Amino acid sequence: MQRKERPMIPSLHDVYLARRSIRAIATRTPLVFSPGLSARYQSEIWLKLETCQPTGAFKLRGAAYALSQLSDKARSRGVITCSTGNHGRALAYAAKQLNIPATVCLSSLVPSHKVAAVKALGADVRVEGRSQDDAERIAIQAVQREGLCYIPPFDHPDIIAGQGTIGLEIVEDLPDVDVIAAGLSGGGLIGGIGLAVSQIAPRVSVVGVSLRDGAAMAESLRVGYPVAVTETPSLADSLGGGIGLENQYTFALVPNVMTEHYHVDEAYIARAMIDVWQCENIWVEGAAVVGLAACKQHRLDWQGKKVVIVVSGKNVSTDTLADVQQLSEQVHE
Amino acid sequence: MQRKERPMIPSLHDVYLARRSIRAIATRTPLVFSPGLSARYQSEIWLKLETCQPTGAFKLRGAAYALSQLSDKARSRGVITCSTGNHGRALAYAAKQLNIPATVCLSSLVPSHKVAAVKALGADVRVEGRSQDDAERIAIQAVQREGLCYIPPFDHPDIIAGQGTIGLEIVEDLPDVDVIAAGLSGGGLIGGIGLAVSQIAPRVSVVGVSLRDGAAMAESLRVGYPVAVTETPSLADSLGGGIGLENQYTFALVPNVMTEHYHVDEAYIARAMIDVWQCENIWVEGAAVVGLAACKQHRLDWQGKKVVIVVSGKNVSTDTLADVQQLSEQVHE
Repeated sequence: MQRKERPMIPSLHDVYLARRSIRAIATRTPLVFSPGLSARYQSEIWLKLETCQPTGAFKLRGAAYALSQLSDKARSRGVITCSTGNHGRALAYAAKQLNIPATVCLSSLVPSHKVAAVKALGADVRVEGRSQDDAERIAIQAVQREGLCYIPPFDHPDIIAGQGTIGLEIVEDLPDVDVIAAGLSGGGLIGGIGLAVSQIAPRVSVVGVSLRDGAAMAESLRVGYPVAVTETPSLADSLGGGIGLENQYTFALVPNVMTEHYHVDEAYIARAMIDVWQCENIWVEGAAVVGLAACKQHRLDWQGKKVVIVVSGKNVSTDTLADVQQLSEQVHE
Repeated sequence: MQRKERPMIPSLHDVYLARRSIRAIATRTPLVFSPGLSARYQSEIWLKLETCQPTGAFKLRGAAYALSQLSDKARSRGVITCSTGNHGRALAYAAKQLNIPATVCLSSLVPSHKVAAVKALGADVRVEGRSQDDAERIAIQAVQREGLCYIPPFDHPDIIAGQGTIGLEIVEDLPDVDVIAAGLSGGGLIGGIGLAVSQIAPRVSVVGVSLRDGAAMAESLRVGYPVAVTETPSLADSLGGGIGLENQYTFALVPNVMTEHYHVDEAYIARAMIDVWQCENIWVEGAAVVGLAACKQHRLDWQGKKVVIVVSGKNVSTDTLADVQQLSEQVHE
């Protein structure tokens, strides 16, 4: 009997292996009950504070695990990625801790302070091309030409397993959790969390939330194969970008482990950012609060339930507060 | 041979016992490196994020340990305290988790939203008297009349041991730490951290920071016995209040374990609050940043050192941001 060769979606066991591997680099983040948000959203709201990661976002988990799995030969050659933000910073940080040379390809659209943040971590930063697709093309050329190892931002078994450690930690800290809500973009986060939670706590709802416009995974799932969509600016910029027309893992994984899916509009994201600010004194990315935005916009019936919002990152300038405040006023508190 | 009876200052062993006891109630908070603050303060700045405690401040550690040490009889009678904020909220929270009836005495000066926060935790709240001293007197009368157990905010061996768990966690997470800086008020925080750190990592500087005016512990240490001082309004309101003229523990402990001490002015506190906001996207109490304020105001030579700032709490309204921003402009970034 011959088995058909197919990409290996990571297993729950891989998530446990990932947890051990990333311990020295990524933080086991706190899960904190929010009385203020619970009152405003009429549910028992808990926050999984990935904002406490050393790079300010959950992406460090996957990057750290992917690097830990490389052979000595691959490590000595070095790694490369393309990024518009959190993944590039995470890879640069983890590579520095492990003494692995890292290259991050950024397009000329990436703001200079983000370029500086990655450079400050000691990575070789290549600013070239005028789009994320250009940056990816340049990274892949470098893989072929220079023998570097490509670490993609989400569509990779080790990245998915790394992000899945969030699911383990949530269920350990709050075993009677009912709902876990997080942003859905490339699917590494929802895929990883869902992979873990669907097996260790299968009655938990895993809620993915996409933007109204430019949601590549949502559109791909709708039509049944990976498609490209046009990106539009959003407060949840971390949720932008495609899923890759050659997607190997997350497109297959996400529909199997995500139990609910919603789209949200900008004003509701703004409202949720301001609510988190006023109740918890932290200023986070739009992508970090889409679960709350979905609760309000779709009047989700979470009353009496224990809801965990995966507060995925805080890499947003505090200068945006006033504008977001103004936009949030379109939605009642 | 007869030993003179004297109050038992807690030992390092008590801090380890405290850690085990509080695990289910207080969070093991993350210690996070801040690249932005490191650049602004020209040192390697790490933040011990007590803001992630479920009550938003470190006080939960001591309150949880003090309650865990009560006899069944004392538990069934209930506990009482007086507070202007973080300790009362912490005691109410921990008591609720342990099913212990709790009473919190607040003066009529305490703002209504703080009263509501303690009430929401199920505590019996008594608003009476026109000062913190009044509230304390009322609490102590209730102890005598109703047989409740009084849990003071800092001058108690279990409270000190509980706060000391912060010191254990810091040295475990960053064994080569050079400096730990925290606010000095009643001395529970600095006393507890110093108790642990002076023994497990004796080369570490334990830096206490007081307000310029109304710093009761600083003035008491100067004159050699506990004295009362006049309180003045401050951004670091958590550092206000006396040390008790009958102080039994912290007045003796603090000078033995604190290696440096500084006073800071309001504009430097404001500058540090804004720096933490801009670099880390969190809005914290003035008391949480006095270590940074001291670094800038006294031009402390921390270059090349690993410095931990104990970010003690975040229970401050976000409405204060604009005013603090304005005050901070008196001090260059």
